[in-house]
Amino acid sequence: MMPGDRSIERKGDRGILLGDLAKKSPEKLQEYLKKLHPSDLAEAFPALNLAQRVKILRSIEPEDAARVIFDLDREMVVPLLEGLGRQRTAKILEGMPGDDAADLLGELPRGEKEKLLGIIAAAEAREIRMLLAYGTETAGGIMTTEYAAVQKDLTGRQAIQALRETAREAEIIYYVYVVNQNNQLIGVFSLRELIIADPEAPVELIMHTGVISVNVRTDQEEVARQVAKYDFLAIPVINDDHELLGIVTIDDILDVIEEEATEDIMRLSGNIDLEGEEYEVRTWRRAAKRLPWLVGLLFGGLMAGNVINFFSGALETMTILAFFIHILAGGPGNAATQSLAVVVRGLATGEVGSEDVLKVIWRETRVGVLIGLVSGVVMAVTAYIWQGIPLLGLVVGLSLAVSIVIATLLGSFIPLIIHRLGIDPALASGPFITTLMDITSMLIYFSLASSILLR
Amino acid sequence: MMPGDRSIERKGDRGILLGDLAKKSPEKLQEYLKKLHPSDLAEAFPALNLAQRVKILRSIEPEDAARVIFDLDREMVVPLLEGLGRQRTAKILEGMPGDDAADLLGELPRGEKEKLLGIIAAAEAREIRMLLAYGTETAGGIMTTEYAAVQKDLTGRQAIQALRETAREAEIIYYVYVVNQNNQLIGVFSLRELIIADPEAPVELIMHTGVISVNVRTDQEEVARQVAKYDFLAIPVINDDHELLGIVTIDDILDVIEEEATEDIMRLSGNIDLEGEEYEVRTWRRAAKRLPWLVGLLFGGLMAGNVINFFSGALETMTILAFFIHILAGGPGNAATQSLAVVVRGLATGEVGSEDVLKVIWRETRVGVLIGLVSGVVMAVTAYIWQGIPLLGLVVGLSLAVSIVIATLLGSFIPLIIHRLGIDPALASGPFITTLMDITSMLIYFSLASSILLR
Repeated sequence: MMPGDRSIERKGDRGILLGDLAKKSPEKLQEYLKKLHPSDLAEAFPALNLAQRVKILRSIEPEDAARVIFDLDREMVVPLLEGLGRQRTAKILEGMPGDDAADLLGELPRGEKEKLLGIIAAAEAREIRMLLAYGTETAGGIMTTEYAAVQKDLTGRQAIQALRETAREAEIIYYVYVVNQNNQLIGVFSLRELIIADPEAPVELIMHTGVISVNVRTDQEEVARQVAKYDFLAIPVINDDHELLGIVTIDDILDVIEEEATEDIMRLSGNIDLEGEEYEVRTWRRAAKRLPWLVGLLFGGLMAGNVINFFSGALETMTILAFFIHILAGGPGNAATQSLAVVVRGLATGEVGSEDVLKVIWRETRVGVLIGLVSGVVMAVTAYIWQGIPLLGLVVGLSLAVSIVIATLLGSFIPLIIHRLGIDPALASGPFITTLMDITSMLIYFSLASSILLR
Repeated sequence: MMPGDRSIERKGDRGILLGDLAKKSPEKLQEYLKKLHPSDLAEAFPALNLAQRVKILRSIEPEDAARVIFDLDREMVVPLLEGLGRQRTAKILEGMPGDDAADLLGELPRGEKEKLLGIIAAAEAREIRMLLAYGTETAGGIMTTEYAAVQKDLTGRQAIQALRETAREAEIIYYVYVVNQNNQLIGVFSLRELIIADPEAPVELIMHTGVISVNVRTDQEEVARQVAKYDFLAIPVINDDHELLGIVTIDDILDVIEEEATEDIMRLSGNIDLEGEEYEVRTWRRAAKRLPWLVGLLFGGLMAGNVINFFSGALETMTILAFFIHILAGGPGNAATQSLAVVVRGLATGEVGSEDVLKVIWRETRVGVLIGLVSGVVMAVTAYIWQGIPLLGLVVGLSLAVSIVIATLLGSFIPLIIHRLGIDPALASGPFITTLMDITSMLIYFSLASSILLR
């Protein structure tokens, strides 16, 4: 097969083809599956029914089945494992890297998890138990224990020999770590450096010291930042005694970065499910994930309406006040969302550290004053031209300016504080802050209108 | 130095320390810099002035200086290169991988770029020119030409020998590509497979065929999806004749994913600068990046106000209509943002393909009808209880439900269509869609109110 050929087929077509084959010709299906990369197979799975999925996974190698299962949406996995039966599932879990197996098991019901761990080969089970013990979002939770390490007193030739023996185990041997007799991490070299080095020199001469590593309890977002910053392929994970426990590889970091970006986007847009929507879920479940925020925010809007209700005397005297409600609600809301996005993104990429709180708030305040002033003046003039009442222009412009300054402050302050305190980040949701601003700006607008226009 | 020691210093402190050293004791500065990883040095740069930055970059190896410069915000780079002078800059560019050098040069003024290319060593300059010829957001623009490839008729031992000779050049030799006499890609093996294989067997027996590759013109987002999907460390780039041109490595993919996620977040929040804000920029420039959308949206709000103005007769008769303006504006706006985020994220991670337009819209419509109905009923009951007018409850509930359905549709339809047509994605901005919904929902609300309540 020539390179690139695979991309010619569309994933939808492939699903239909698979379904057809599974029904009509089991032999042709086997033939076809052998040519497919597990990740492509996983993409075609939504088009198949459960019986077909089980049949296919039974007919391919456990290692490939492991890869397919790991790529599937989690919602598909549980019934699939049930269909496969415990013995086959245990085989498949043994074929996965330990960190992936722990990930999968972590999402199964407790009883099922324990039963499976009882069947899996002892060594793998022990490793999975250890990984499960760390938090799923820490370095320990995403690391693999299959790394390449050598003792410091080996020569280059001996090291190559040692790696030949362990290479089948190690998920990635592109970095080789050097440890002392206490298993403490003291150095690192790349396979490339080993290959081009003098085979008789001890690895201590090839290795780099001052290895950059992360603690086993470090948050996965921080691990991702370190790997991205230094352009590493893997980063070693150590405990408080500097003992080497595992490595986090860049392909897992890719997943972390995708996951955290999705989390930020869902949070900013007020989707309740911070991990994003699965694409195979039924309508009512999708709706259930969006409704709580939506209805909650409607009641927030009701509070803003209540403010108007409180000032209904003013509104009855001057109905034109209502024409500017959208501007007073929308402008500050948008300004808050802009600040929020800039700060949330800065926190995610590491450009803003939690130690920079005051600096960032001061910076956003200056920006807020500037955009508040410009917007206020523009709208004051517009309102004056539209309605011909100078004082109305003043009220609209002034309340818009003040609201935008407050909005910019809130939009930067809230995510920073939440990040620092480690509270549930859903509170920093974009719609929550805009709704808060709706209420605030209505208070400012109608108070100013009452005291300036209706004295 | 023990692993992890480096993380003890805070980046702010380090900047101050560097500034101090640069002023007082150039020798100690040299000492200190030698211990620092280039990426850490880059993080400390904002705290230094231009003269100090130039001095430091002159005193370290060109390769390290290259790494520091590549990590800096682009706004800092141009004055820095001017300060360094053309000869030194050329040396530094030669020390960078070709793709990074092309990236940097691509952002310099045309005249300056040509002058630098004239000084750089001919081979490097040729490579950079070739990379610059591809679009910066294509596989060709982000690939490196420093890869490891061997002819198909070598043995394992000969391949190791060949790699020893080229390893210093190749950015990453963890995959070794196999080509035929026409330089067409026919296979791939990993260094691990080479090491554990029989040294006398020809590489044709070790290699995997059916290599997954991308075309040189493929969009970088698609390249990132392929690499993430297959968990590759690098993906080969070929032209239409299947000739191997280069590879895209996973560290560059990490940058692409960060960049695309930032772009999505900025777009959803209505920040005009799609690439995010640089953190060293002055207040007025930050404000200038946010103001155009903000003021544009204010005029959008004015249009919603105009709708109210059109119905001011209705409003004067029933001031209570104003109490629900926030609910009718906020609810549909939030629903639109939720849909938008789900679809935009789905497009980014590849879970939604552009071929799925109708499927996604149909799915979002069902979700929209469900959340519209629930929200509508909840608000109808609330409005009735609050104001005691059954018909008012009907108007509020009905217009909310209809608006939310439309909002969900718009929130999914607009990004999908834009993605398919390849138009400027800024149009899919969250605030743009919410403002559009403000106008639409006011029309629906006041039309229904006029025809039901005020007949």
